[in-house]
Amino acid sequence: MSKTDAPLRVGIAGLGTVGVGVIKILEGQRALLQARTGRQVCISAVSARDQGRKRGVALDGYAWCDNPVDIAGRSDVDLVIELIGGSDGPALALARAALNAGKSFVTANKALIAVHGAELAELAEANGASLRFEAAVAGGIPILKALAEGLAGNVVTGLHGILNGTCNYILTRMEREGLSFGDVLKDAQRLGYAEADPTFDIDGIDTAHKTAILAALAFGTAPDMQALPTEGIRNIAPVDIDYARELGYRIKLLGVVRRTEDGIESRVHPAMVPLAAPLAKVMDAVNAVVVQADPVGQTVYEGAGAGEGPTASAVVADIVDILRGNIYPAFGVPAKRLQHLPTIPTEKHKGTYYMRLRVKDRPGVMADITAELARENVSIESMLQRGKAPDGGVYIIMTTHNTREVAISSTLKHFTQLECVLETPTMLRIEEF
Amino acid sequence: MSKTDAPLRVGIAGLGTVGVGVIKILEGQRALLQARTGRQVCISAVSARDQGRKRGVALDGYAWCDNPVDIAGRSDVDLVIELIGGSDGPALALARAALNAGKSFVTANKALIAVHGAELAELAEANGASLRFEAAVAGGIPILKALAEGLAGNVVTGLHGILNGTCNYILTRMEREGLSFGDVLKDAQRLGYAEADPTFDIDGIDTAHKTAILAALAFGTAPDMQALPTEGIRNIAPVDIDYARELGYRIKLLGVVRRTEDGIESRVHPAMVPLAAPLAKVMDAVNAVVVQADPVGQTVYEGAGAGEGPTASAVVADIVDILRGNIYPAFGVPAKRLQHLPTIPTEKHKGTYYMRLRVKDRPGVMADITAELARENVSIESMLQRGKAPDGGVYIIMTTHNTREVAISSTLKHFTQLECVLETPTMLRIEEF
Repeated sequence: MSKTDAPLRVGIAGLGTVGVGVIKILEGQRALLQARTGRQVCISAVSARDQGRKRGVALDGYAWCDNPVDIAGRSDVDLVIELIGGSDGPALALARAALNAGKSFVTANKALIAVHGAELAELAEANGASLRFEAAVAGGIPILKALAEGLAGNVVTGLHGILNGTCNYILTRMEREGLSFGDVLKDAQRLGYAEADPTFDIDGIDTAHKTAILAALAFGTAPDMQALPTEGIRNIAPVDIDYARELGYRIKLLGVVRRTEDGIESRVHPAMVPLAAPLAKVMDAVNAVVVQADPVGQTVYEGAGAGEGPTASAVVADIVDILRGNIYPAFGVPAKRLQHLPTIPTEKHKGTYYMRLRVKDRPGVMADITAELARENVSIESMLQRGKAPDGGVYIIMTTHNTREVAISSTLKHFTQLECVLETPTMLRIEEF
Repeated sequence: MSKTDAPLRVGIAGLGTVGVGVIKILEGQRALLQARTGRQVCISAVSARDQGRKRGVALDGYAWCDNPVDIAGRSDVDLVIELIGGSDGPALALARAALNAGKSFVTANKALIAVHGAELAELAEANGASLRFEAAVAGGIPILKALAEGLAGNVVTGLHGILNGTCNYILTRMEREGLSFGDVLKDAQRLGYAEADPTFDIDGIDTAHKTAILAALAFGTAPDMQALPTEGIRNIAPVDIDYARELGYRIKLLGVVRRTEDGIESRVHPAMVPLAAPLAKVMDAVNAVVVQADPVGQTVYEGAGAGEGPTASAVVADIVDILRGNIYPAFGVPAKRLQHLPTIPTEKHKGTYYMRLRVKDRPGVMADITAELARENVSIESMLQRGKAPDGGVYIIMTTHNTREVAISSTLKHFTQLECVLETPTMLRIEEF
């Protein structure tokens, strides 16, 4: 989009809370946006499923499209804002239509970008349009801008993020109130902190979409959901939260990406984080990202990860960039130069681990367990056994020294086969950020 | 600067640690920078006081200028990087020369921008050049980018920053080791954490420069050092650090800016911050900024505030922006549209306060003190008296409810005149971030 003084005419597809938030900023901050960009922004057309729904903003000044994809074809629309959601369907159709028409495309849709980001980036470049998605990751925190621009002189070596507010809210309340995952989830759904179908959030899929996008921007690679082993927080028990605290940790659902000599490691799973680490202090529905980069060192970014205002703020920042001419390839480097770095499977991960076993309360159990550890050469940093487990037997808690994940997986398998072990063991990775 | 494929030729004035850091990135990350911007960056000329000094980087490929201002006039320099420092002298002369020649100007010089920012911004616009200074505030943290771009759709309502690593390092060690300000300062100088002449850091002047720049970007105003009452950390006593902790606070040197209905409030002073607040957790030489904005809410940015790598990272980010065409007015809005908002003097500040008195240990003292508080209508939230002060008398510690600063100043003046008060009372403002 070339620099001009003519107003930028936008079309918005999807009028949920974020769409309404975007309309409020574009209409309410007209003068501010014009001062900051030198151009006016005006909304030409909107689309949503239900035209009659009350939204708290007036829509009568805008053309209405029943089919969101029609927005892309309108001659009075220069830039398309997609807030429909979903990796495929109308969101993808609209993205393709807009970019093919040479119109810039701004979205908050993490699934779309995580799955089709490379294709869309190429389409954007081929058509001289801009593809931007700051709102897709960590809501109001300008983390994609930090990675692609603020740290553009750096080589990112690693990144840890709390990227899902629902999960962090649930883990926070489990710790504060000593409640089970199921009880907090139910209450979170009642209060609107969790969806009626919470699968995407609690099984880590939402975090995985965001992690894939962060990895792509951090390393100049195409987003790759295939290379992203994903675990959620369903199996976190209050007893693990208690033991974590006793050992000086807090459990957080993390998106982790790392650049090593052998390639890129990306994963999503709950992890134990030292209480003094920046991510351990991030509570409730807040999001945060810790970036390790050379030569800047560690930088931390924290803020609201969702909601009308924060997400709309990020969408508008993308529009401002496009208005100012801050246009560059979607993942920081041209789509054709996106690197294909080898991905390191989780089995090859090396780190420290927490394990919890429920075992029979009888002599010889410790000997059985330590024999399994010795077999795989797993070196133990601390081990504790205390009191009775509420459902019979006793708990044995271990943290390991640095070890290979393949050794841990194998040890856990052998633990399960031991006669003295009463249930599937729990394992959590320990991360230092 | 128009978009082109020709290499961008830069000149660097000032070859201290930051200058060397910039050379290392520009030379070491050539391929990365070209992939990210589509253009090559090459260094044409450099200038420093001592050509012979060993710096750990080879300079023989670059032209040498004895006079830094000559860099601006060279036909083989498109962009000037100023790392000399100082608000006037050669840095200012170079800035004017570069911008007058229509060459973009990137600097890490907070004093220059805090004092002459408005003039230079106007000069840049008049000559179609870019003026950028990400490295001037909070080193490697891309906080100016966050304010001017990432939060461009927001109205910033307030901002609190830990902006001086030396002060935060001193306060951290005073707390951890129970040492006096003077002792830690001496050791910090020995270890290189504080300058031989530490005035700029410990008296808050460095923080004030950075706060003035942050205020300008947050509110679209011209930087104004006049409107910035500044106190440093010289008078912080270990006893105040101890009482702060007991009351649930930590003492930090803050830059504070706030937008209220009556105008803009900017100030630099040590403050008590609740232990659970984001800024209380920022230790050692780390910098952090908490931004309150509408509609994004609170966002927090944290990282290294100084040093070769972090500062050079910010300088290079500015160059990348200019290469990509991300060019906008220096303070986010055109120089002619910078607002002149009324500044609120500190006397009109309203907040909560901590006061410490050393008084004679005899009956009637409390009555004298409470009479003074009543006279100015200062309402006390907590008051404690404990043990003997090491140098005679006893300490009385108070925190107030919300009150006007003018009432506190007047009360402190009256305290000083009381016969029972043994030394000038200590006052610290309480800030919630």
